[in-house]
Amino acid sequence: MAGGAAAVLTSMEVLGLAPSAAATKLDFRAPRRSDFSLQGRANHTKVVVLGAGVAGLCTAYELEKAGYDVEVIEARERPGGRNWTVRRGTTETDLDGVTQRCRFDEGQYLNIGPARIAQHHTTLDYCRELGVPIEVFSSANTQAWYYNEASDTVGGALAGQRVRQQDLKVDAFGYVSELLAKAVNQGALDTELTADDKEAMIELLRSLGGLFPSETGGLEYFGTRHTYPADDEPGAGFQYGTPVDQIAMSDVLASRLGGYFELELYWDQAMQMYQPVGGMDRIPYAFEAALRHRPKYGAAVTEIASGPRDVTVTYRRRGRTRTATGDFCVCTIPPLILKDIPNDFGAQVNADLAAPEPVSIGKMGLQYGRRWWEEDEQIYGGSTYTNMEIGTIWYPSHGFFDPKGVLLGFYWSGDVAERWAALSPAEREARAVEQGSRIHGPVYRDELESSFSNFWQKTRYSEAGWVQFFDPPEPGTPYGRLLEPAGNVYFAGDHLSVVTAWQHGALESARLAVSRLHERVLAGG
Amino acid sequence: MAGGAAAVLTSMEVLGLAPSAAATKLDFRAPRRSDFSLQGRANHTKVVVLGAGVAGLCTAYELEKAGYDVEVIEARERPGGRNWTVRRGTTETDLDGVTQRCRFDEGQYLNIGPARIAQHHTTLDYCRELGVPIEVFSSANTQAWYYNEASDTVGGALAGQRVRQQDLKVDAFGYVSELLAKAVNQGALDTELTADDKEAMIELLRSLGGLFPSETGGLEYFGTRHTYPADDEPGAGFQYGTPVDQIAMSDVLASRLGGYFELELYWDQAMQMYQPVGGMDRIPYAFEAALRHRPKYGAAVTEIASGPRDVTVTYRRRGRTRTATGDFCVCTIPPLILKDIPNDFGAQVNADLAAPEPVSIGKMGLQYGRRWWEEDEQIYGGSTYTNMEIGTIWYPSHGFFDPKGVLLGFYWSGDVAERWAALSPAEREARAVEQGSRIHGPVYRDELESSFSNFWQKTRYSEAGWVQFFDPPEPGTPYGRLLEPAGNVYFAGDHLSVVTAWQHGALESARLAVSRLHERVLAGG
Repeated sequence: MAGGAAAVLTSMEVLGLAPSAAATKLDFRAPRRSDFSLQGRANHTKVVVLGAGVAGLCTAYELEKAGYDVEVIEARERPGGRNWTVRRGTTETDLDGVTQRCRFDEGQYLNIGPARIAQHHTTLDYCRELGVPIEVFSSANTQAWYYNEASDTVGGALAGQRVRQQDLKVDAFGYVSELLAKAVNQGALDTELTADDKEAMIELLRSLGGLFPSETGGLEYFGTRHTYPADDEPGAGFQYGTPVDQIAMSDVLASRLGGYFELELYWDQAMQMYQPVGGMDRIPYAFEAALRHRPKYGAAVTEIASGPRDVTVTYRRRGRTRTATGDFCVCTIPPLILKDIPNDFGAQVNADLAAPEPVSIGKMGLQYGRRWWEEDEQIYGGSTYTNMEIGTIWYPSHGFFDPKGVLLGFYWSGDVAERWAALSPAEREARAVEQGSRIHGPVYRDELESSFSNFWQKTRYSEAGWVQFFDPPEPGTPYGRLLEPAGNVYFAGDHLSVVTAWQHGALESARLAVSRLHERVLAGG
Repeated sequence: MAGGAAAVLTSMEVLGLAPSAAATKLDFRAPRRSDFSLQGRANHTKVVVLGAGVAGLCTAYELEKAGYDVEVIEARERPGGRNWTVRRGTTETDLDGVTQRCRFDEGQYLNIGPARIAQHHTTLDYCRELGVPIEVFSSANTQAWYYNEASDTVGGALAGQRVRQQDLKVDAFGYVSELLAKAVNQGALDTELTADDKEAMIELLRSLGGLFPSETGGLEYFGTRHTYPADDEPGAGFQYGTPVDQIAMSDVLASRLGGYFELELYWDQAMQMYQPVGGMDRIPYAFEAALRHRPKYGAAVTEIASGPRDVTVTYRRRGRTRTATGDFCVCTIPPLILKDIPNDFGAQVNADLAAPEPVSIGKMGLQYGRRWWEEDEQIYGGSTYTNMEIGTIWYPSHGFFDPKGVLLGFYWSGDVAERWAALSPAEREARAVEQGSRIHGPVYRDELESSFSNFWQKTRYSEAGWVQFFDPPEPGTPYGRLLEPAGNVYFAGDHLSVVTAWQHGALESARLAVSRLHERVLAGG
């Protein structure tokens, strides 16, 4: 979902908190029927899987490959959990009792949970295996805007002005290169650089910054690579176009817009990314279709009893109390929810389940009757970044040229997400539109048709976007202990991975739980 | 097609050769039938359009909107000209008499001419107008590789080693940021930066470079944002992953790989770009379908006679000599070809047509029986850059997860393109495979199924990728004079735009010719 997890991991590494000695690589090997037949026996093991989110579905799918009898129990009426695509007719009542019904046109949708897949993530492997077609998620579109409002730190001529990312990037790299070239040529860094380094560095800076020799013999940035406004682009004949003005260095710096550059330098955010054709929920529906037994939907777990040889789960469904019993259970219910479900895991496990803190986060989709961002602003996908509360605006990466489209008009976490969650859906829409209008003008209000917003901390059965453990992911911490089964109950979910908040983490955690359970069963239970 | 045009324009601007006083914006208004009816008359004007490439098709399409009677004459047996998508069954005999027949599987293809559309280009406007669906062309994929062989300028530990673009980028920005922060903090740039600038610059560098405070109190780059190898990525439990090693600064610099960063900073190359779904030739075929009369294919012009009131074009078709006569002619035949066709344009026009120099360029498609770049290297689209003669490798931006795929295995111009064009198709394939194997290993040879290569300088009716005028695009130069009609013959094509080698230039040039012709007709011819 966001860069938080990658950032946390990075900091851990810098601080030496991720002990590489303890690191164990999960070289996943899917369980097979032959694992049992080679032992001269059949697999009569039954596993109850709690939750049909990405971790639960993957668990069930992989266990069934080896002939496990799997029963999936899910509180919601659909698969996917936080992998949720909002479409016409989607109806949700939040924990405050506020009901929204999505009024997007047929064929329009928004991935209101995870929306992007990095190409090195296990998520893509499952898309391939399950036959879910993918397309590019336009994460790297510098034709989109930067926009920072004036603040304690933001000032200069760009404050409150939108600027094409390409222009800011070109100017920022130009000035950085020009200054470093100056320092290098003045000998200010001679203790750091050999003569060969200096020569190669100057060459790099000339190229990166678009520097040219100045009249005084130095290297200078002249604003040579700017974009052109739509009404004055280079064309035929003598139409040379007039590039937009070079931004003064002080204004580039005072805008603080360069702070957005780093996003693409994180491993998990690296350009570019991918999405399933037709919506992120194509993944859970493909898992569901691949299962022998459809998950039991609308089944909210009320108790988990882990006996010495089996596990009995009690749940409420269609007004009745029922139970499911298996030799084992894989529980993917988020810890925030699970900690309030009566169980016999013991005091330590229950304390560990209560340890992580919830992260508040929300998204809002805005349907427009016309793709004005494509037609008027020549933006086909990508994200606009701003320091306003809406956080980002994402232009859809699919359906280019369609008559209509759904923007992501709010995506932010923490305090902001909590303040916005407290508003009514109509108030949220009004606020998002007011802020977006500062970037896009009246069209942002005038052509709006409908909206749908979701804040995970207000969403039943989730109550958070994801959770954060504050102790490091090591043996002996809550995270470390929850990797061990409570009797015959294994825990899984993105929270038990170091890639929290991404489907990759949920899938890898499912594979880890499956591997450990399967090893135990093969070893005789 | 390539960055050449943008680079030329940039240099022109720096040198002051693009006089902004002479710049005239073409605010295109498509001709309409009502332009005539408002004058109380009908449009009885006939126009012969020479060439069914992008410029010719656009000319015919726009003129027909206002009721012109248009006849299009095209030497090839297909529309598109250099906009050419190579598919199963595509057959071409080059000027040396060497015939290739494409053996790609059904559904596989390569855009062997233009392959990318910038989102601000007029090309996308026509895609919208003609109903040609587009998808993202993955131009910004840092999961692809950089690979430079050792040379006079390339050395260090990375020479002859592939490196993920993301890793090199992160390290290069890290070192550049670290060095500049050092210079700034040492006061080496105090004459350039105010105190506020310094503070904001340090903040930018910390973020861009991923710098952390060092033990000695400075800011240092620790290699904190590296990618992970596929077999040791962060996952579940204690699987922290082991990032790939930080590259020493001297090796980053000596590799000269940072020279590839600038590509995305050019306006025409800015990330990201687009392509029609199903092949670039969907554009010419959509133009063709929108025309009232199908172009006459297989019709090679042998003479153009521009009388005082009309134009007569003689051509050979199906073994017979025929003529077409119109009130006007729009000639989009490339100057290299046109200069050898007998005409009565006069000595100056013929000298001007002979002025531009041809640019040699070629591409090669390699079909593989398995998408090993996706499965083994987690690369979904994007380009690998190298200093070897193959220039770049492009991974297809469509058909992700398909069993097979076609790579672009060679794309280079100038001397290299001339040397490779002199080889047989089999020799080209062998050489491309040998070089690609240095990056990708034996799979590059072992899984190859077939190839198809094209060099425009050897391609009949083109004889060049594009042309370059060496005088600036000003009134009084060959370029400037060719913007004027020769009697009733107007010239158009990407060569008469300042955006040579892009479809945008061809379309804008067509619009300019159409506008001038239409104005003249409305004014009474």
